[in-house]
Amino acid sequence: MKPPSSYLAASAQFGAGSSPSDFLERCLAAIEARESDVKAFVVRLDPALARERAAASTRRWRAGAPLSPIDGMPIGVKDVIETIDMPTGMGSPLYDGYRGEKDSASVKALRDAGAIIIGKTVTTEFAASWPGPTRNPHDLARTPGGSSSGSAAGVAAGFFPAGLGTQVVGSIVRPASFCGVYGVKPSVGAINRLGSHDYMSQSAQGVLAASLADAWQVLIEIANRCGGDPGFPGLAGPAALPPARTPRTLAVLETPGWKIASAGARTAFGEKAARLRDAGVTLLTRATSPQVEALEAMLPRAMPLTRYINGWESVWPLRTYGERDASKLSPPMRERLAECDGMNVGEYRAALAERAAIRAAFASLSTLADACLTLAAPGPAPVGLASTGDPNFAVPGSFLGAPAMSLPLMSDEGLPLGLQLLGFEGADADLFAVAGGVQALAR
Amino acid sequence: MKPPSSYLAASAQFGAGSSPSDFLERCLAAIEARESDVKAFVVRLDPALARERAAASTRRWRAGAPLSPIDGMPIGVKDVIETIDMPTGMGSPLYDGYRGEKDSASVKALRDAGAIIIGKTVTTEFAASWPGPTRNPHDLARTPGGSSSGSAAGVAAGFFPAGLGTQVVGSIVRPASFCGVYGVKPSVGAINRLGSHDYMSQSAQGVLAASLADAWQVLIEIANRCGGDPGFPGLAGPAALPPARTPRTLAVLETPGWKIASAGARTAFGEKAARLRDAGVTLLTRATSPQVEALEAMLPRAMPLTRYINGWESVWPLRTYGERDASKLSPPMRERLAECDGMNVGEYRAALAERAAIRAAFASLSTLADACLTLAAPGPAPVGLASTGDPNFAVPGSFLGAPAMSLPLMSDEGLPLGLQLLGFEGADADLFAVAGGVQALAR
Repeated sequence: MKPPSSYLAASAQFGAGSSPSDFLERCLAAIEARESDVKAFVVRLDPALARERAAASTRRWRAGAPLSPIDGMPIGVKDVIETIDMPTGMGSPLYDGYRGEKDSASVKALRDAGAIIIGKTVTTEFAASWPGPTRNPHDLARTPGGSSSGSAAGVAAGFFPAGLGTQVVGSIVRPASFCGVYGVKPSVGAINRLGSHDYMSQSAQGVLAASLADAWQVLIEIANRCGGDPGFPGLAGPAALPPARTPRTLAVLETPGWKIASAGARTAFGEKAARLRDAGVTLLTRATSPQVEALEAMLPRAMPLTRYINGWESVWPLRTYGERDASKLSPPMRERLAECDGMNVGEYRAALAERAAIRAAFASLSTLADACLTLAAPGPAPVGLASTGDPNFAVPGSFLGAPAMSLPLMSDEGLPLGLQLLGFEGADADLFAVAGGVQALAR
Repeated sequence: MKPPSSYLAASAQFGAGSSPSDFLERCLAAIEARESDVKAFVVRLDPALARERAAASTRRWRAGAPLSPIDGMPIGVKDVIETIDMPTGMGSPLYDGYRGEKDSASVKALRDAGAIIIGKTVTTEFAASWPGPTRNPHDLARTPGGSSSGSAAGVAAGFFPAGLGTQVVGSIVRPASFCGVYGVKPSVGAINRLGSHDYMSQSAQGVLAASLADAWQVLIEIANRCGGDPGFPGLAGPAALPPARTPRTLAVLETPGWKIASAGARTAFGEKAARLRDAGVTLLTRATSPQVEALEAMLPRAMPLTRYINGWESVWPLRTYGERDASKLSPPMRERLAECDGMNVGEYRAALAERAAIRAAFASLSTLADACLTLAAPGPAPVGLASTGDPNFAVPGSFLGAPAMSLPLMSDEGLPLGLQLLGFEGADADLFAVAGGVQALAR
């Protein structure tokens, strides 16, 4: 499969023969050709309406007055994020056809920037683990990953150059890895979540995209218009992709994922690491750095604490859903609901305190390394659609509140595999700069 | 007017002749007698249904198995907080008849504790400044204060012993002062706001109540069942009202309100302060303590920073409302909407940073004083319903993220006036203990 087309790259030619309308036509042709197999969408914008909007954008670009660098960009929106013109089903029969009659803050910002919301993309049930129908464009027998399944698969299949996603465990980084696209989970609170059914304390809204430049542009256009979550400073940085910067030092993290990583994934990661080392980047590991070892020793806590924190924070909505109609919840969701009864605020408080302590330990690593480097998944997308795959490599970024991204720079068994970079909370722009540098050396 | 009846006091007699059904009948009689004048409710629960629920509660108490100490307690719910059985109008024609088809986390917790949600209470438009029809039970020509107007007036008139409210500027403390009831705005994040249309970073859900014990019990029953906002430890403390504790030292704050306080309010406050001093409580003031003076010098920033922070955090919903139908917004809300265009995330970030610095300075005062003492309002409720009154005394608690309460211990012109206590973030239970001590000495 060829890599998906960047809108930012295409827009350099707008005016010189090409246009947003041309770009849209390529997307619509890809949808026409493959959507019946890939099933990335829950709802699609009427193509006639999409063409109208692209034509308006084309006129703005021709007049030299686009609303923003993403004016005319077709964007898919994960189906937990509200849109005024389409229902928001949250991957649950409980919300089938639900309409909040509003755009989320991020969707409103994207529209104000001229983007074309081209459809709602498949999510797992309530952005948790129960999968939707989406298939991996690289191999239809495999999962695209989740929970932002449709946004990742849609970018990979060329349906749109960027899709909004959310991540509280591994829901952006993992499907990005499996589908071979860029996936960015920003710092906690960096992108305003109002109007999205996404309330957990370590959840963040982010993006799956065809290029680093596309990802940054979507995020900064949102943040400059509606900021981050209330009380957070919001994503900050330059008006266009931060220039690439070669990192001096990277901390290589094994995380609990390394033990289950495939031989192919280990080899691919080792090759990228060697290339960076050869280029003069210092790589700290648990063997060479006591600070890295100290962090590695804490990371096995990420998954159990994440489970408790997310579980307690879900007690209210889960009980509400259960009382409305428990038969419309998936079996694992009904299990979670039953687990609610054993949870209490005291244990939650202890989990928050431990998370805060581990976050502080992680933050201190910023004096030693420009970023952390690890795998985005333990191997390629597994065969079958019943599971969205293992989240062990993705959960640390969520748990740490740190910006995390998967770069589509590796493969295993001929299928995509992501190289993951983890940055430091609030320093999202710097992580993009480092990612540019890493990509140039390790590609 | 006689003070409203405490449910916790009445429940001591349940079993000995009295019952939740008797309590409810007194509430229904008060509603029958005065609701047409006071207008505290937007929607009321069918009295037959309320009686059914009270009878069930009576049976539980008689069996010695109440669901909680507030089993059978009639509670009013501010009309920005969702209830599955009643619409949530938010004081705006834009949401007339709106049904979210769910209970908020707090309402669900109250129902699980056996409380009877007796109706939705009047709020100003979107809990901001444009008033509803509610009148002050102590003088129908005067405002009850806002934005939790109906919950405050309803407690004062004996319609229910407790009502849920929210405060982002002065929306609990101010109406509590004007209506002569207890008003508690907990620490920021202490009470779970999920399912309430209340998203601003310094907003908190709290309670207006007939007694300190009723206020504590309502809050702790909520917090023990659904905790605080995601990511916050939530209100913590004993299963019943913390025992009264005489404070050693209180910091007397003038705040920017003192300059506009009435002569009567100053005199009443001076008398209470003298009584505390006579009882051996050390009172620090800006004249005697450099730390208090330093804080006083910062407090004039509370109102302008609060305006900017709340304004920026409202940009998304306000624009959304405006696009749906700006004609259904009040004139001041349309002005706010126009102000959105001049706001930006950079200034918001600076405001957050300044707020954090002032919060840190305030927190350091906890080594010197048990709590802060000030007025809850500059005088009694003003005549007229067009304004909900001045928020200068109430805004510091919101801005500081600190627990704040108004105690109905004073009067001016024969009308209620609240003594305000401000505690330290997270130490809500301790503030209740200090309030008990202050009340015992200053009553």
